[in-house]
Amino acid sequence: MSHKENLTAYVSSFIEQLYQSGVKRAVISPGSRSTPLAYLLKNHPGIQTHVNVDERSAAFYALGMAKASQEPVAIVCTSGTAAANYYPAVVEARYARVPLIVLTADRPHELRDNGAPQAIDQINLFGKHAKWFYDMPIPESEPDMLLYTGRIAAKAAAKSSAAPKGPVHLNFPFREPLSPDLSFTPDSKPLSSVYLAEKQLSEHQLSDLIQQLHQAEKGLIIAGPSEDQTAADAIIHLAEATGFPVLADPLSGLRSLMEHHPSVIECYDAFLRDNEVKQLLQADLIIRFGGMPVSKALTQYVKGSACSQWLIDEGADWRDPTSSATHYIEMNDQLFAEQLAKADIEKSERSWLNRWISLNEKAAHQIRQYTDRETDEGAAVGTLLRSLPEGAHLLVGNSMPVRDVDTFWIRGMNPFHVWANRGANGIDGVVSTALGIASVKREPVYLLIGDLSMFHDLNGLLVTKQHPSQLQIVVMNNNGGGIFSFLPQASEPEHFETLFGTPPSLDFRHAAALYDMNYERCETKEALQQSLSGDNHSLKLTEVITDREKNTASHRLLWETVAGAVRGE
Amino acid sequence: MSHKENLTAYVSSFIEQLYQSGVKRAVISPGSRSTPLAYLLKNHPGIQTHVNVDERSAAFYALGMAKASQEPVAIVCTSGTAAANYYPAVVEARYARVPLIVLTADRPHELRDNGAPQAIDQINLFGKHAKWFYDMPIPESEPDMLLYTGRIAAKAAAKSSAAPKGPVHLNFPFREPLSPDLSFTPDSKPLSSVYLAEKQLSEHQLSDLIQQLHQAEKGLIIAGPSEDQTAADAIIHLAEATGFPVLADPLSGLRSLMEHHPSVIECYDAFLRDNEVKQLLQADLIIRFGGMPVSKALTQYVKGSACSQWLIDEGADWRDPTSSATHYIEMNDQLFAEQLAKADIEKSERSWLNRWISLNEKAAHQIRQYTDRETDEGAAVGTLLRSLPEGAHLLVGNSMPVRDVDTFWIRGMNPFHVWANRGANGIDGVVSTALGIASVKREPVYLLIGDLSMFHDLNGLLVTKQHPSQLQIVVMNNNGGGIFSFLPQASEPEHFETLFGTPPSLDFRHAAALYDMNYERCETKEALQQSLSGDNHSLKLTEVITDREKNTASHRLLWETVAGAVRGE
Repeated sequence: MSHKENLTAYVSSFIEQLYQSGVKRAVISPGSRSTPLAYLLKNHPGIQTHVNVDERSAAFYALGMAKASQEPVAIVCTSGTAAANYYPAVVEARYARVPLIVLTADRPHELRDNGAPQAIDQINLFGKHAKWFYDMPIPESEPDMLLYTGRIAAKAAAKSSAAPKGPVHLNFPFREPLSPDLSFTPDSKPLSSVYLAEKQLSEHQLSDLIQQLHQAEKGLIIAGPSEDQTAADAIIHLAEATGFPVLADPLSGLRSLMEHHPSVIECYDAFLRDNEVKQLLQADLIIRFGGMPVSKALTQYVKGSACSQWLIDEGADWRDPTSSATHYIEMNDQLFAEQLAKADIEKSERSWLNRWISLNEKAAHQIRQYTDRETDEGAAVGTLLRSLPEGAHLLVGNSMPVRDVDTFWIRGMNPFHVWANRGANGIDGVVSTALGIASVKREPVYLLIGDLSMFHDLNGLLVTKQHPSQLQIVVMNNNGGGIFSFLPQASEPEHFETLFGTPPSLDFRHAAALYDMNYERCETKEALQQSLSGDNHSLKLTEVITDREKNTASHRLLWETVAGAVRGE
Repeated sequence: MSHKENLTAYVSSFIEQLYQSGVKRAVISPGSRSTPLAYLLKNHPGIQTHVNVDERSAAFYALGMAKASQEPVAIVCTSGTAAANYYPAVVEARYARVPLIVLTADRPHELRDNGAPQAIDQINLFGKHAKWFYDMPIPESEPDMLLYTGRIAAKAAAKSSAAPKGPVHLNFPFREPLSPDLSFTPDSKPLSSVYLAEKQLSEHQLSDLIQQLHQAEKGLIIAGPSEDQTAADAIIHLAEATGFPVLADPLSGLRSLMEHHPSVIECYDAFLRDNEVKQLLQADLIIRFGGMPVSKALTQYVKGSACSQWLIDEGADWRDPTSSATHYIEMNDQLFAEQLAKADIEKSERSWLNRWISLNEKAAHQIRQYTDRETDEGAAVGTLLRSLPEGAHLLVGNSMPVRDVDTFWIRGMNPFHVWANRGANGIDGVVSTALGIASVKREPVYLLIGDLSMFHDLNGLLVTKQHPSQLQIVVMNNNGGGIFSFLPQASEPEHFETLFGTPPSLDFRHAAALYDMNYERCETKEALQQSLSGDNHSLKLTEVITDREKNTASHRLLWETVAGAVRGE
């Protein structure tokens, strides 16, 4: 067989099995060494390929696709620093548990570690942040080798999808010439099927937990952020079976369901800031699902609770930054909630739940009034959330946006879905993540983001020139790092503005022009509402001008108002 | 001592010793966890701090500063993906041998590996690409600890500066509260002095090499790219002592000196493409300094030379991608050239050198005429080089710009200095590298870059809002990946434009508006010349519109014309 035939058969066998294993999307960054992968992925009728030039953005774009589709997405780049640019998204995927299959092209062995151009050491490039790394063999087309590369593809897809999901990395050495034969048709027989079985509690473990559950009079469920929000129904069902309130993080998936489920509590961040109120609400059992919630007040409440705390985590990561969990339960959230709810559970006394519901209502009332009355960033976020159509998808940036959504997403709105990059909570790659989600979801997709985070991933927008997007972007432009104003460092007047405020003074109108986006600038809530109610079938940037200092003061006022209202309880 | 006093004394002791060890510049990206480092660096009277929001750009900005100053530069960021964004520049620094001191803030141990927000595993985050990694202890201020942190700072500076230079990474765990005491004055007594001794040939090794040198009748010196261009004088001196021609890569530093040194050959890339000419020029000894040159024709010439080949490399990297070196000499370029030239060397016969000089002159004549006559990218690069003032610094992007500069930088121009990121040859981070160089050099600094590379690091420009720059940027906008048109893949019409051409269709006028840059668009060489002769005391972007297809054809014509002219020899 010729070099070209070897190369084509080898790479095609890999790609065909990747497809058979459920990989339907690939994001390719241009490069020469990666030619065989790029051409044959593009040529595969079942795989949708997107070209994204900046590898950092490309990886986050794929992350968004994988989040939205709950399927592994492949990313392909050439050798050298191109691959290093994937690192931020690989780290996010690792901690957020999102399946990515990283395919990097490399020089063949005779051009490694000897000063060849654009050759870096790509072995274990992402260190412990890749769930699996494998350095592929040189392309050959012996039948055994084709079977083998197929198995590697199947294993890559399975490893990225097994709990906890995450990124895997395969490194491909390619010799020149690099062009494959595009007329080749690979054998499409699937080479292997994969069954990933799930962990279940034993009879004994279950009865042990049920017994403890029945001893609790003031049980509390906390539904933290979860990439896989499919556990939401099961958690609500468990809450209703036990009679426990369930505090629902905006990324738990539960708030989309809260209208019909009074035991879902959403305003805890506002009322748990008050020490008096916290005293009233001491639980005797806490059951935690998902990661640690966004709310710092809730984290402090959890830390201060001396009761039994169950932590359910299939990822074996023991996500317990307060070191307060007393029971670790290593299994899937949904399966745990279902297994428990199926057992014969007695419902606890109603007064405990009622107290939470009543406090929650009071806080919600204050927050609603605040959105009506105020003109700060918080009120703008409240306005945005009220304007979202049913079934909308909203990606929220880290720092302030996710905290504001936590506060201002309360009952009485259309149900919608909220996403964020909460693996490592970075402000990087957020635009690309949103575009990735928008490329998978047909419903309107929205992005709420601060100006620094928007700036950080402006490059992400280039992909929309080749792949038009309907994403609606709302940038809260307070000219700098708004969250820092809430920190003790802000009281240090010297150097604060230089080091933390970092006013970028960006007029996003020019960014909109660079990337052919529709653009609107809003100075009022009414203008924002107007902008959101317009056409949402093309890429649009709505810039909301806000004020950092005013924002800090008005947020503090909100917490005081809520505390005053709930203390009357 | 209070927490704040401990924190302040510990971090101050570290920073003071960093300064005493020669670190005069730090690039800080905003974040909360890194507050102690950021505030105390900013507060140090001897350290210049720059704030750069996007960590990827920040690290390349520091890389440019370190290249231009030949001193280690510190970079500081917060925990999480922020640090992962440093990876591309860390990899480039490792292979280009540039001293960087990476300081990442981290959560303290009790908030690691337990799901705390924005906490990722930062231990050995950059893998083998950091020369040294150390996880710092929790801040304490016992005298022994302060001595210790000072020693770590001194060691970090020394390790980054020892041959081969490169990046080191220290990870700092910080507990809240994070604000240090800015009124604290650290003990400024230097804690340690460092002497880095250099390798020298033994008498025996030297006489062995001299003997071999005298057997050579057709010796050739190749001066490849080197971050530390201080060896240039010594290499030219060696060439003149031996009577050997010296082929000078644009990044060797030798071309700046070629006007007064006829043995410096700069047009080899043009005439070594021809097989007949190559036959005429078979050497019997090749002495290689620095990395592998940019010129592929030269690489192929080296690969095809069966003679003795000496490779001098202090980095022990054996940078010999052609596997053709026969002698490895592990020591500094300059010291080797000096030690050899000091020995009693006989000059070889003049006719060998004359043949090279004569061919070089013929090629140079053709290239000069081409620049006068043509209108493609190459001619534009020739025009740019002719327009540079004496002593100018020019950073060239990878892919086409560095190759065009290799071709079109010929005798008869003002002497200037050329830089590039040739560690891993990435198209990323180039704008920031140029801005970093411009922040150190007082002479006018220029950047020649393609549109994709410019796009990749547009974010790098934000720093100019806080730190005004006089950088003159010339973007060759051929709307895509121009270099790919030279590859065999280009003959595959299907998918080529989508996967390789990747036309971004960017009008850089809008980018200029976003970052308050002066902007000019040029369609002719004359317009480019005009633009370059204008005011060069403020940031300016000159966009040159070129054509990818025309460019490929006209470059091929140039090689043919040169071959025709030199074959007459």
